[in-house]
Amino acid sequence: MATVKGVDYELVVTRPPKDVTPAFLKMNPNGLVPVLQDGDFIMFEGNAIMTYLADKNGWKDVYPTELKARAKVNEYLHWHHTHARLGTPQVLVPLIMEGAGKASPAQLEMVQNTEVTIAKSVDIMEKLFVKPYIAQSTQPTVADYACYCEMDQLEIMDVFDFTKYPKTSNWMKRMKDVPFHDEIRATLNEFLTKMNLNPAPKK
Amino acid sequence: MATVKGVDYELVVTRPPKDVTPAFLKMNPNGLVPVLQDGDFIMFEGNAIMTYLADKNGWKDVYPTELKARAKVNEYLHWHHTHARLGTPQVLVPLIMEGAGKASPAQLEMVQNTEVTIAKSVDIMEKLFVKPYIAQSTQPTVADYACYCEMDQLEIMDVFDFTKYPKTSNWMKRMKDVPFHDEIRATLNEFLTKMNLNPAPKK
Repeated sequence: MATVKGVDYELVVTRPPKDVTPAFLKMNPNGLVPVLQDGDFIMFEGNAIMTYLADKNGWKDVYPTELKARAKVNEYLHWHHTHARLGTPQVLVPLIMEGAGKASPAQLEMVQNTEVTIAKSVDIMEKLFVKPYIAQSTQPTVADYACYCEMDQLEIMDVFDFTKYPKTSNWMKRMKDVPFHDEIRATLNEFLTKMNLNPAPKK
Repeated sequence: MATVKGVDYELVVTRPPKDVTPAFLKMNPNGLVPVLQDGDFIMFEGNAIMTYLADKNGWKDVYPTELKARAKVNEYLHWHHTHARLGTPQVLVPLIMEGAGKASPAQLEMVQNTEVTIAKSVDIMEKLFVKPYIAQSTQPTVADYACYCEMDQLEIMDVFDFTKYPKTSNWMKRMKDVPFHDEIRATLNEFLTKMNLNPAPKK
């Protein structure tokens, strides 16, 4: 989002658990990324970081200030954790661990359940799309950024058939028009290729 | 929070899955509570509902408008889902199901892991308390309301020794001073007693 909005920032790549130092744990006691450092102000939780940056910089397009529009964005951002977000811990990470021959029994079970896990979220997402973007807006908000980061990696890995969900598929096409989409996606693509999780696209 | 703030509201008790009608699914496609209906505006996700009500009614004490203070509240509210919140699906619900002789193998495993599950959250919570309340505030905010609802039920059920965590224990004592605490807790107490999950306090 900072790239799209053209603000200056420095990205510090931190890979838990190996990069989790005592100094990092002071910034985020969870020992996880992302963490934002803005002068002497430090915070964690990606969805809260996005709303902070939007409020600080007056980005009303991505985080509306109108009461009900904002409520719908927050509704999505909270829903996200127990649904779309699971694409990372319950799909991506187990697939990486399986590829490395290091998956736990629970992770192997998650690999088996990939399609069911994703379908649970996307079934509900399909109902959330009453407008072109996920939090009932006509342009992408932080809710779409949060959601798309999860869905995009599933699409690249080709582990789910999104075409059965027309509203979600059309939204995923629309999200590809967000400025810098391809440049930002290139890094993810490269990572998934390195992990052998980027199959050739289906014909 | 609506009780504490003295706004008029009607509480409609809805018990998923038995009360989940097609009309209810239109209000919340997840088929879960809570759901807020405010005129023709309908929303779900408890943490988002609290921030909506606070913004609508100008309750700056429970949801500060100052940028960084608000960011810390939002940071907690998002962290909540993957930590303190687990007290309900991973502790309370499995204990209820076990009591009813209906626990799945996964739920029986959760019952075994009760202390570990709670400790994971409370270990981090203890580090979040740099001020008297959880989101670095000097008075209770919606972050404390969200967190206390989870911790309070664990305290009533007596499934965890909070005394090992001085900052968290002191905060739990402070939360008992929130207006209407005892009246609101009475309903929970009654429910847990009905479920045989309210043991006599330890001497």
